[in-house]
Amino acid sequence: MEFLVRIEVRYPVDGDRDELARLAAAERMRAAELAGEGHLRRLWRVPGERANWGIWEAADATELHAALSSLPFFPYMAIRVRPLAQHPNDPERPGGR
Amino acid sequence: MEFLVRIEVRYPVDGDRDELARLAAAERMRAAELAGEGHLRRLWRVPGERANWGIWEAADATELHAALSSLPFFPYMAIRVRPLAQHPNDPERPGGR
Amino acid sequence: MEFLVRIEVRYPVDGDRDELARLAAAERMRAAELAGEGHLRRLWRVPGERANWGIWEAADATELHAALSSLPFFPYMAIRVRPLAQHPNDPERPGGR
Amino acid sequence: MEFLVRIEVRYPVDGDRDELARLAAAERMRAAELAGEGHLRRLWRVPGERANWGIWEAADATELHAALSSLPFFPYMAIRVRPLAQHPNDPERPGGR
Amino acid sequence: MEFLVRIEVRYPVDGDRDELARLAAAERMRAAELAGEGHLRRLWRVPGERANWGIWEAADATELHAALSSLPFFPYMAIRVRPLAQHPNDPERPGGR
Amino acid sequence: MEFLVRIEVRYPVDGDRDELARLAAAERMRAAELAGEGHLRRLWRVPGERANWGIWEAADATELHAALSSLPFFPYMAIRVRPLAQHPNDPERPGGR
Amino acid sequence: MEFLVRIEVRYPVDGDRDELARLAAAERMRAAELAGEGHLRRLWRVPGERANWGIWEAADATELHAALSSLPFFPYMAIRVRPLAQHPNDPERPGGR
Amino acid sequence: MEFLVRIEVRYPVDGDRDELARLAAAERMRAAELAGEGHLRRLWRVPGERANWGIWEAADATELHAALSSLPFFPYMAIRVRPLAQHPNDPERPGGR
Amino acid sequence: MEFLVRIEVRYPVDGDRDELARLAAAERMRAAELAGEGHLRRLWRVPGERANWGIWEAADATELHAALSSLPFFPYMAIRVRPLAQHPNDPERPGGR
Amino acid sequence: MEFLVRIEVRYPVDGDRDELARLAAAERMRAAELAGEGHLRRLWRVPGERANWGIWEAADATELHAALSSLPFFPYMAIRVRPLAQHPNDPERPGGR
Repeated sequence: MEFLVRIEVRYPVDGDRDELARLAAAERMRAAELAGEGHLRRLWRVPGERANWGIWEAADATELHAALSSLPFFPYMAIRVRPLAQHPNDPERPGGR
Repeated sequence: MEFLVRIEVRYPVDGDRDELARLAAAERMRAAELAGEGHLRRLWRVPGERANWGIWEAADATELHAALSSLPFFPYMAIRVRPLAQHPNDPERPGGR
Repeated sequence: MEFLVRIEVRYPVDGDRDELARLAAAERMRAAELAGEGHLRRLWRVPGERANWGIWEAADATELHAALSSLPFFPYMAIRVRPLAQHPNDPERPGGR
Repeated sequence: MEFLVRIEVRYPVDGDRDELARLAAAERMRAAELAGEGHLRRLWRVPGERANWGIWEAADATELHAALSSLPFFPYMAIRVRPLAQHPNDPERPGGR
Repeated sequence: MEFLVRIEVRYPVDGDRDELARLAAAERMRAAELAGEGHLRRLWRVPGERANWGIWEAADATELHAALSSLPFFPYMAIRVRPLAQHPNDPERPGGR
Repeated sequence: MEFLVRIEVRYPVDGDRDELARLAAAERMRAAELAGEGHLRRLWRVPGERANWGIWEAADATELHAALSSLPFFPYMAIRVRPLAQHPNDPERPGGR
Repeated sequence: MEFLVRIEVRYPVDGDRDELARLAAAERMRAAELAGEGHLRRLWRVPGERANWGIWEAADATELHAALSSLPFFPYMAIRVRPLAQHPNDPERPGGR
Repeated sequence: MEFLVRIEVRYPVDGDRDELARLAAAERMRAAELAGEGHLRRLWRVPGERANWGIWEAADATELHAALSSLPFFPYMAIRVRPLAQHPNDPERPGGR
Repeated sequence: MEFLVRIEVRYPVDGDRDELARLAAAERMRAAELAGEGHLRRLWRVPGERANWGIWEAADATELHAALSSLPFFPYMAIRVRPLAQHPNDPERPGGR
Repeated sequence: MEFLVRIEVRYPVDGDRDELARLAAAERMRAAELAGEGHLRRLWRVPGERANWGIWEAADATELHAALSSLPFFPYMAIRVRPLAQHPNDPERPGGR
C-alpha cells in the first residue's frame, strides 16, 4: 500500500552544527536503505521550505510508522501521512495506460 | 518540472447520469493521452472521496494549466497545485540511490 | 489494517422523503453486511450532527474505498479517512493488557 | 458513555532522556490500569506522529478528565475530546448486527 | 452531565414564510418542554447571527442527541457539541463558592 | 450583559512548582470574589485540557476586561471572549419558560 | 459599549434586480436612522468585497442584535460581532490624548 | 486612507519587568504623538487579550508601516493590516448622514 | 499605492454559455482599459484554478474598489485585497538595484 | 517561470543585534545579486509585519529553491511558494495590452 507523506524538519536554528551535519549524513544513508527496501519510492523538496513530499510503500500504517521513525531526524520532524488508493487512470498501474 | 496536484471532482449528485458516464469515458481517454505525452506521471485515489492526488510534469505552470484544463471534468474540478523541487535523497533521481 | 473514518451525510433538506427512507433502509442492510465481512468494526453517532465516526478494517486503502463507496448514501457523503497504526498500549492488542 | 480522544505528546526534543524513559514506563503501567478499570478501550498510534487516537469510557466528562489527567505524560499532552453517541448500525451495539 | 452546544439555523432565505412561522412556534414549545425536562438549561443568542449558545444537560451523548434532534428546526441546524466537566471554582457547584 | 469566555492556561511545564501552587490558591480565592461580585456566573473545565468555559457578567467589555485581568493566572492565559444576547427561549429569562 | 462588526452581504447573483434596488434604498435609510440614534458610528467598505467593517454602539449585545436585525439586508447577511473595551491610549477617549 | 489594524503584543511572561514598564510608558507617549500627527484615529482593547483594534490613517501602506514600526513594542507585536475604503452609508463621511 | 489582489471567478458550471462568452470578451476589454489607466499592472493565472493574482495600483482602497467593481465578472468574483508597502530591496524601486 | 513568494523573517527578538545588522547588510547585497541574475523581479513589504511578497523567476522549482536558500536570512525564514501561469490579460505579456 502506498502513502503520501509530508515531512517538515524543525531542527533549531541555533542547534549544534556538527550534530546537524552528522544527522544529515545519517539521514541520507537511512533514506537510501529505505529506498532499497522498497519503502521510500519518491522524494521531492518543497521549494523554500525545510520540508519534503514523499511516496512511501508499506504493508500497513504500523510498518510505515516503523520506517518513518527510523529516520535520524525523526525527533525533529512534523509528519502528516495520507493513505493512497489505486486509481484506474494511474499510468503506472498494471494494465494502466 | 514536476507538480503535486490534488483534484476534487464536484459533479452534482442530481446531475445528469448519461452526461456523467460520457464525461467519465472521455476523462479516461484524455488521462491516457496526457500520460502518453508525459504530463500525467502517477495518479492515486483519495480513499472515501471523489478526489485524487497526482504527480504531473510540465515545462512550467502555464503548460500545466493547459494540461489540467483539457480534462473533460475540468469545469467540475477544484484543483490545488504544489510545485516540487528535486530532493537529493529521491530514489529515482539520476544518480539518486 | 484499521482506519478511523468520519462520515458526514449531506442529504438535501428538501430531498425526496421516500428516497431517503429507501436509502436509510438499504444503508442499514449494507452496514450489517460490511460488519459481517469484518470491514465495519465500530460506529458512533456524532451528537447533534448527521455524521458518524467509525473504525473500519481493510487490507489497504483500495479495499477500504470499495467498502465505503458501496454504501447507498455514498453519493451524499463527505468522508475523511485516517490511517491507524498499532499502539503498544492498546488493550485489545494481542498480548496487550 | 464513550469518547473519542486524540492525544499528542509534546515532550521536548532536548528533554531529559532518563526522565522520558521513566515517564514512558509509568505511562504503560497507568494505561494498563485504566484499561483494567474499563476507561481505556482502544488505542492506536497516528503513523508518523507522537500522537494517538483512543476510545475511552467514563460516566461523564468529569470522570474522563480524572482518567486523562492521571496519565504520567499529561503535563506534556495536547488533548482533544469528542463525545460519542450510540449509532443504530454499530456492530457491537447490543442487538446491533 | 452538561454540554455546551452551539446551534446555527440555516433556513433558506427564500424558504416558505408560513412554514418558517410554524416551525418557530413549534420550536418555542419544544424548547419549553426540553427546559421543563431539565435538558435545556440556558440559551443565548449570538448577536448578529441566526445562532445560539446553550447549556444542555443529559445522561450522555445519546440522550443529548435525542433531545437535539427533537427540535423542529433540526433538519436546518448545524450543531457543534462540546462536553463539559465540573470545575472546582464553579460558583454553582455544590459547595462551590 | 453576559459573556461566554474560554480561558486556556499555559503555565510552562517546567515552571516553578511552588509559584504554581501559590497562583492556584490565589486563583481560587479571586474566582470566589468574582463570583461574589456577580461577575463569574458559571465555570466548567474542558475535559483533557488546561482550559475552561465560563459565563461571565459585566456592565460592558471594559468591566469584563478588568475582571479577567485581575485573575492571578492572567499573564499565562489565552482568552477568547464572545458577547451573548438574550434569547426568547432561555429558561432562566424573566418570564422565560 | 462599542462593537466592531463585520458584515458580508450575500444577495444571490441571479436575485431579482428590482428587489435589490429596493433593499439598497431601504438599507441606506435604515443606516441613516441607526446613525441618528447613535448605534452606527462608522462604516467602511472592504475593498473588492460585498462587505463592510463598522463601529457600532449599543447598551449591550441584545440591543446590538435588535439594531443589526433591523437592517433590510439582514436575511442575506453573514455577520461577526467583536466586543470592544476602552483603551487608555485611544485618542478619542475622554482625557485621552 | 484609513486602515483597520489588529495588534497583539507578545511580551514574554518572564520578560524583564523594568523594561516592560519603560516600554509601556514610551508606547503611551509614541501613541499620543501618532494621534497628534493624525495617524492613530481610534484604539480599543480586545477584552481578555493583550491586543487592540485601531483605526489608522496614512497616505499609503509605506507610511503606515513607518508609523507602526515606530512603536516601542513593535519588535514584540504581531500585526495584521486591513485596507478600508469609503462607504456611502458611513455617518462621518462628508455629506454622509 | 500598490495592492496584491487575488480574484477567484465563480461563474456557475451550468450558467448560460453565451453570457459567459460575452462577459469574457467584455472582461478582456475592461482589463485592457484598466491597464491603460495604470490600475492593472500585472496579472497571472493560478494554475488549475479559475483564479488570478494581480498587482494593482490606485490612490487608495476606495479607488481600487471602483476599479475592481468595474470588471464585468465582478458579481461572480470572490476577491481578497492585500496592501503593499515599498521594500528597500525591490529591484524596480527608484534607486533600487 | 514566475513564482509568487511570501517570506516571513522570524529573527528572535532577543537575538544578537550585531549578527542581525550583519545579516541585513548581507541580505541586501544578495537580493541585489539575485535581482541582477533575473531571479528576484519585484519585492514589497507586508505593512506591519516582518514579511514580504515577491515575484521571483526561475527555470523551475529546483532553481528557485537554490535562489531562496542562498539568502543570508534563510535559516530564519518561513517561506510559501505559489506557482504562476501566464494570463492572457496580463499587461506585460508579450502582445498583452
